[in-house]
Amino acid sequence: MAAARARQDTLTKPQGALGRLEEISIRLAGITGQAVPRIGRKVVVVFAADHGVAAEGVSAYPAEVTPQMVANFAAGGAAINVLARHVGADVRVVDMGVGKPTANIARGPAMGREEAIAAIERGIEVAREEIAAGATMLATGDMGIGNTTASSAVVAALTGHPVPQVTGRGTGVTDEQFAHKVGIIERALDVNKPNPEDALDVLAKVGGFEIAGIAGLILGGAQRRVPVVVDGFISGAGQLVACRLCPAATEYTFAAHRSVEIGHAIVHNQLGQLPLLSLDMRLGEGTGAALAMSILEASTKILAEMATFADAGVSEASEPTIAQ
Amino acid sequence: MAAARARQDTLTKPQGALGRLEEISIRLAGITGQAVPRIGRKVVVVFAADHGVAAEGVSAYPAEVTPQMVANFAAGGAAINVLARHVGADVRVVDMGVGKPTANIARGPAMGREEAIAAIERGIEVAREEIAAGATMLATGDMGIGNTTASSAVVAALTGHPVPQVTGRGTGVTDEQFAHKVGIIERALDVNKPNPEDALDVLAKVGGFEIAGIAGLILGGAQRRVPVVVDGFISGAGQLVACRLCPAATEYTFAAHRSVEIGHAIVHNQLGQLPLLSLDMRLGEGTGAALAMSILEASTKILAEMATFADAGVSEASEPTIAQ
Repeated sequence: MAAARARQDTLTKPQGALGRLEEISIRLAGITGQAVPRIGRKVVVVFAADHGVAAEGVSAYPAEVTPQMVANFAAGGAAINVLARHVGADVRVVDMGVGKPTANIARGPAMGREEAIAAIERGIEVAREEIAAGATMLATGDMGIGNTTASSAVVAALTGHPVPQVTGRGTGVTDEQFAHKVGIIERALDVNKPNPEDALDVLAKVGGFEIAGIAGLILGGAQRRVPVVVDGFISGAGQLVACRLCPAATEYTFAAHRSVEIGHAIVHNQLGQLPLLSLDMRLGEGTGAALAMSILEASTKILAEMATFADAGVSEASEPTIAQ
Repeated sequence: MAAARARQDTLTKPQGALGRLEEISIRLAGITGQAVPRIGRKVVVVFAADHGVAAEGVSAYPAEVTPQMVANFAAGGAAINVLARHVGADVRVVDMGVGKPTANIARGPAMGREEAIAAIERGIEVAREEIAAGATMLATGDMGIGNTTASSAVVAALTGHPVPQVTGRGTGVTDEQFAHKVGIIERALDVNKPNPEDALDVLAKVGGFEIAGIAGLILGGAQRRVPVVVDGFISGAGQLVACRLCPAATEYTFAAHRSVEIGHAIVHNQLGQLPLLSLDMRLGEGTGAALAMSILEASTKILAEMATFADAGVSEASEPTIAQ
C-alpha cells in the first residue's frame, strides 16, 4: 500500500486529485499484495434461493418468480446480464435452494446450524473455483422472493436496531402492507430469539441460503486475497454475517452502492464503509456491484497506466496544491 | 419519453427498481427522440487554455504546465486518456488559447465580448464536427492553470454567492493562500463589474477561453439533440454560462459528478441537477465525465437489452411492489 501511495503521488495530477479512485487503488494493492494491481477476469456470483416466509405474503411477487428469474439469468435477459456484459464481467448463478425453501422464519428457524455452515462453505467453494479459473475480482448478487424480509431480520438481530428502521417500504406500499411485513419480521425474531453475539445462530434462525452463500463468497475471496464487491441490501446482510464471523474480511470488501432499502445504510455504518454509488437502485442480482466493479477496475488502470511527472516532462507543484 | 417509460415497466424487474438508471434512459429518449436510444461513439472534448490571472500566484503550478499537459494528452498518459480508454470513449483536445492567455482578470476583462462569442462558436463547431463524425454522446473536459480562479469568479458573478462560498481550498492550503485567492477573485469582480443578467458579459470579463468552449460544446450538442455529460467545477462554470444563454439546453446536460471544489454544488443547485457520482475528485480534464458516460450508456443497454416479463415468462407483481 505504501508503494501504491508513492506511485500515485508521482502521476501527472495534483496529489489526491482523483479522490476515492486513488484510495481504492491503494486498498486493492493491500488486498492483492501487488503494488500495481491489475484486474483480469471479473465474476458476479448470483446466489438464488427460496424462502418459506414468502408464504406470509411479504412480497408482491409469487415464489415461482425465483426459478423464472434463474432461467432469465441463464438466457442472458436479466438486468445483471446486461450490466455484467457492459463492464466485461461474467455471471455465475448458484442455486442455493430454488424450489427448496428455508422453513418459514415466522414459525421457527430457517435452517439448522449445520445447514448454515454447509451453505457458507458452498459460497467459499464457489469463490475458490472462480479464483482458480482466473477471477481477480468477485461480486455478490442475490435472487430470492422474500429475501428482503430475511435480510431485515438478520440486520435487526445483528445490530439491535428496531425492525421498522431496517425494513424497506418499497414502491407504492400502503401503511398496512408495511406494518404486515414489519410484524412478520418481529414475530420471526420473537419466535427464534437469535443470539446477536453469534452470527451463525442469526443466519440459521432468520436468514436464508443465498445470504449464507454471499457470506461464504466474501470469506473465500478474502482468504485468497481477492477483492469482493458487495451489492445491495441482501448482499449487505451476507456481508454483515461474514464480517462478524471474521472481522478481518471487512477490508477485502467494497460497498458498491447504497440501496433504497433503508437498512442498507445501517449495514454500511456498522462496517464503517462508504458506498461508491448512490443511484436509488433496489434490484439486487449484483446490479450495483457490476457498475462498481468498473470503477474499481478504473482505479487500477489509473495507477498502472498514467504517466509520471518525470515520464511526461510535466512540472510539479511548487508547494502544497492550491488548485489546478 | 412516454414510450421509454412504458418499456421500462415491462422489463423483468420491479418497476423503478433500477432507480436513476431508469430515469436517465428516459431522459436520453427525450433528448435523442428515440424510444430506445443506443449510444455509439462517445467523445470527451478537453478544452485547454491559459489564464493571465495565473501571474497572481493563484495556482501551485506554473503556467507552463498547460502545454505540458496538452502534450501528455496527445501521448495518452493523462488521467483522462486512461479513463476514456476504460469506458470506450475518444479524447479530443481543443487548443483554445494555450500560450495565448486571457488578460489578467484582476486588472481588467479577460477578453472582449467578440472574442467570447468566437470562443463559444468554436465549441459549437467542435460539437458539430464530432456529431458529424458519429458522436452520440459528448463530454466536457478542461485544462488550464488558473482556471479554478476564473470559474469561481464566473460562478460568483452569475449566482451572487460570496466569493469564499464558491472558492476551493484545495489540499494543504494555508489560510493565507486561500485568502489570497479569494482576494484576487474579489478584485476581479470589483474591477470588471460583470453584469449578472448577461452571461456573455460575465464570461468575457472574468471567464476563460476553455470555459467558453465548454459552453459552446453544450449548446452545440443540445442543438443537435446529443447529450452532453458535464465534468467538474470548470465545466460547471461553462454549463452555467450555456444554460443562462439558453435555458432549454439544461435538459440536454448531465452532471457527471460532484467535485470537491465547493462551488460545484452551487452550480448543481442553480441548475436543479443531481450529480451521478461523488468520488471526491477534483482533477478536471473530463475524468468524472468519462466515468459517468459509462453509467449513461449502461442505462440505454438496460432499456434495449433486458427481457420483458412476457419474453422471459416471468410472473408480474400482483399489486404495488412491496419488495423483491
